[in-house]
Amino acid sequence: MIHAWEEKRDEIRELLAQRRFQAVRCVLIEMNAVDIAALLDTLEEEQQPFLYRLLPKETAAETFAYLESETQETLIHAFTEREVKAIMEDLYADDVADMLEEMPANVTKRLLRAASAEKRKEVNQLLQYPEDSAGSVMTTEFVDLKADMTVAEAFQYIRKNGPDTEAIYTCYVTDENRQLQGVVSVKELLLAHENDRVGEQMETHVFSVSTLEDQEQVAQLFARYDLLALPVVDSEGRLVGMITVDDVVDILQQETTETVEKLAAITPTDKSYFRTGVWTTFCKRVPWLLLLMLSSTFTGIIITSFEKTLMKSVVLTAFIPMLMGTGGNSGSQASVTVIRSLALGDIRFRDAFRVVIKESQVAFLCGAVLAAVNFLKMLVVDSWLLGVDVSTGVALVIAGTLLATVMIAKVVGGLLPLLAKRVGVDPAVMASPFITTIVDVVSLLVYIGFAQWILY
Amino acid sequence: MIHAWEEKRDEIRELLAQRRFQAVRCVLIEMNAVDIAALLDTLEEEQQPFLYRLLPKETAAETFAYLESETQETLIHAFTEREVKAIMEDLYADDVADMLEEMPANVTKRLLRAASAEKRKEVNQLLQYPEDSAGSVMTTEFVDLKADMTVAEAFQYIRKNGPDTEAIYTCYVTDENRQLQGVVSVKELLLAHENDRVGEQMETHVFSVSTLEDQEQVAQLFARYDLLALPVVDSEGRLVGMITVDDVVDILQQETTETVEKLAAITPTDKSYFRTGVWTTFCKRVPWLLLLMLSSTFTGIIITSFEKTLMKSVVLTAFIPMLMGTGGNSGSQASVTVIRSLALGDIRFRDAFRVVIKESQVAFLCGAVLAAVNFLKMLVVDSWLLGVDVSTGVALVIAGTLLATVMIAKVVGGLLPLLAKRVGVDPAVMASPFITTIVDVVSLLVYIGFAQWILY
Repeated sequence: MIHAWEEKRDEIRELLAQRRFQAVRCVLIEMNAVDIAALLDTLEEEQQPFLYRLLPKETAAETFAYLESETQETLIHAFTEREVKAIMEDLYADDVADMLEEMPANVTKRLLRAASAEKRKEVNQLLQYPEDSAGSVMTTEFVDLKADMTVAEAFQYIRKNGPDTEAIYTCYVTDENRQLQGVVSVKELLLAHENDRVGEQMETHVFSVSTLEDQEQVAQLFARYDLLALPVVDSEGRLVGMITVDDVVDILQQETTETVEKLAAITPTDKSYFRTGVWTTFCKRVPWLLLLMLSSTFTGIIITSFEKTLMKSVVLTAFIPMLMGTGGNSGSQASVTVIRSLALGDIRFRDAFRVVIKESQVAFLCGAVLAAVNFLKMLVVDSWLLGVDVSTGVALVIAGTLLATVMIAKVVGGLLPLLAKRVGVDPAVMASPFITTIVDVVSLLVYIGFAQWILY
Repeated sequence: MIHAWEEKRDEIRELLAQRRFQAVRCVLIEMNAVDIAALLDTLEEEQQPFLYRLLPKETAAETFAYLESETQETLIHAFTEREVKAIMEDLYADDVADMLEEMPANVTKRLLRAASAEKRKEVNQLLQYPEDSAGSVMTTEFVDLKADMTVAEAFQYIRKNGPDTEAIYTCYVTDENRQLQGVVSVKELLLAHENDRVGEQMETHVFSVSTLEDQEQVAQLFARYDLLALPVVDSEGRLVGMITVDDVVDILQQETTETVEKLAAITPTDKSYFRTGVWTTFCKRVPWLLLLMLSSTFTGIIITSFEKTLMKSVVLTAFIPMLMGTGGNSGSQASVTVIRSLALGDIRFRDAFRVVIKESQVAFLCGAVLAAVNFLKMLVVDSWLLGVDVSTGVALVIAGTLLATVMIAKVVGGLLPLLAKRVGVDPAVMASPFITTIVDVVSLLVYIGFAQWILY
């Protein structure tokens, strides 16, 4: 269903080639703006302005807002001044701001010149909010009622001024200084008598966020309180915009992608896989690989320094990858759980002690099971079946190291994200490099310590 | 802000101890049902029914729906028959179904006995849908209009029958056989003339999903098309429920948690960190650690088998952790990107060839940079500054292995999730164990091959 537009693409290409434009329009009229945009994005550059001009006027602006920025740029270059003026008039200010952020300076200038003074002011304001702030994702088109309106007047006002979006279902009530006074839903207005005053129907306890609030925090508020909309106020408490739940769906999608990318040691991008070029992908990945590679120099130094201990029993070196792997896996289990719980607001820094207690208990159980299984495996499978030279001493050293490694890994993995959050670093970013390095070094030292103690 | 209720908790505890119930009610009246539920969840068991009975009737049921299932059970045990009847009457059928899924059989029986025949039927129907299906997350309370109603009649119907939720803003139009005919929004009804027929105003192209559709697919549809609501139909095309965008926010939160947990080799739970006991956490983590530990047996076997090659230059063993670590990191960068793109619908199996092409190009660049940096570092830092015995030959072996490892890791990491999806396995689950094992084994063999070729 999500790829339904692909079937239409070939049909449209063929119709365009045959110059059967009326038929193209008939296909387009049946389609959703999102799908038309996806189709336009994959057409050849010369065809894009052509197809765009065949769109019915009602869907043109909406389709334009959904296009990739490369396609938008191609279209703008092909547009006449009149077409540029029209698109700037028809797009919402927040869509214009999103578009301008991706455009080269000369295109931005041309677009802003074509906009009305009012739209230009609004767009410039939106462009000033930091990336991923509530101000940058809010819409500036909302319904603001006055407390002394009657319900009938309110409906008249909504019919006349309500934007063409779902944002009309939540109406905010402001005073003459644009201060937020309350909120009333269309549902409540529908159930009220038409001569009731808006002020009597409104709820005066309103959650609101500042323009600078982080979008992830905004999303958590929506999730926790099942909100449909949230008003955004400036530093003086004036209502400047609103965020609706469908924006939050996009924020959550974007935050999820960013989180998993950070956890896999990738600098996040906001483009899709094939839209991100090889060079960009390389640049997002290689710094982390370099950092992680160089940080594993420590393990190399330790191994070379304790050469004599390790070389006495070759089996000891053979188990280093397994020990480090298990440490890394145990640590990331703990760190990912804590990072996600931090993001959801289930854990805070003050819970650090409880996290350490819980992680040590889990780690003891996991470590004991792994140690026991590995001990038996070494004595039965490796020594007896495969004929590898494994002494009980070596098996003991490895079992002891496993238990210690899992415990260290889980406690470090549980604590470091909390510390990162505390000092204002993104927990997801610092998780893998630091935790891996610490766990690798410590577990290797424990391993060598155990080996020297038990075997010599 | 999310933790505002915690400040009220101590206040309420104190007021309860002083038996100042009127004051408790005053505090509760100012609070949101979500926060009251969070507060109730953390009170002592004896206090829970007590505080619950102080709630204003309007918020009691809503608060109950937000409680943890343990608290719900405690309350039900304390409830009189009349209170059980009341709560079963006031809760929506989907909230009842969610609750029953967590209750022991005797409690479920008691609750269903107390429900009206109609509610019982509805709940039983909901309980039959598979977990995480559209049927299990939908609400069965929605507005269904008829095409021949006038707009005025439609508003009358909505006022009278509309559920007490945001679900009223999207109204579905059905025929006498409950077949879905169209959709009309309250906004469109508001803008229409009151004598217009609903049938003239409705949109007849309606996206709908079947009750068995996976909730993640549903969430993707909402995200792609900026939907507010989606109708759910049974196998005969009859409208049986609807999913609203605020449910999707919860689905996305839950899916994100599941994805990051799977990527970190943890079997997902749906409870918060501290609500999950030590034993449960242990059970969710240890099988994966065991699997990963045992799969690294292969690397151990390879190291022992090629003992002679590796032991000739101790430095060679010292670099094994770094090589494997880099391979693992490179592989997970590729696999996580592909897994996420699969989830977002940006990549499909048929793109496998393009994925391989892109990943090999990125891998070549990353591998070349890592190899060059490491080569220089070994000759300058390790050999010259640290005085480790590194020959140019060894540095070459390691540089070559790095390049090969990164390339293998990225291609395997990019391809395996696609193959997993193809054969119907969850790509996120199989990513870490399989990719790590394959990359470890192959890179070790390449390492030994290079060493034998260049050094001997």
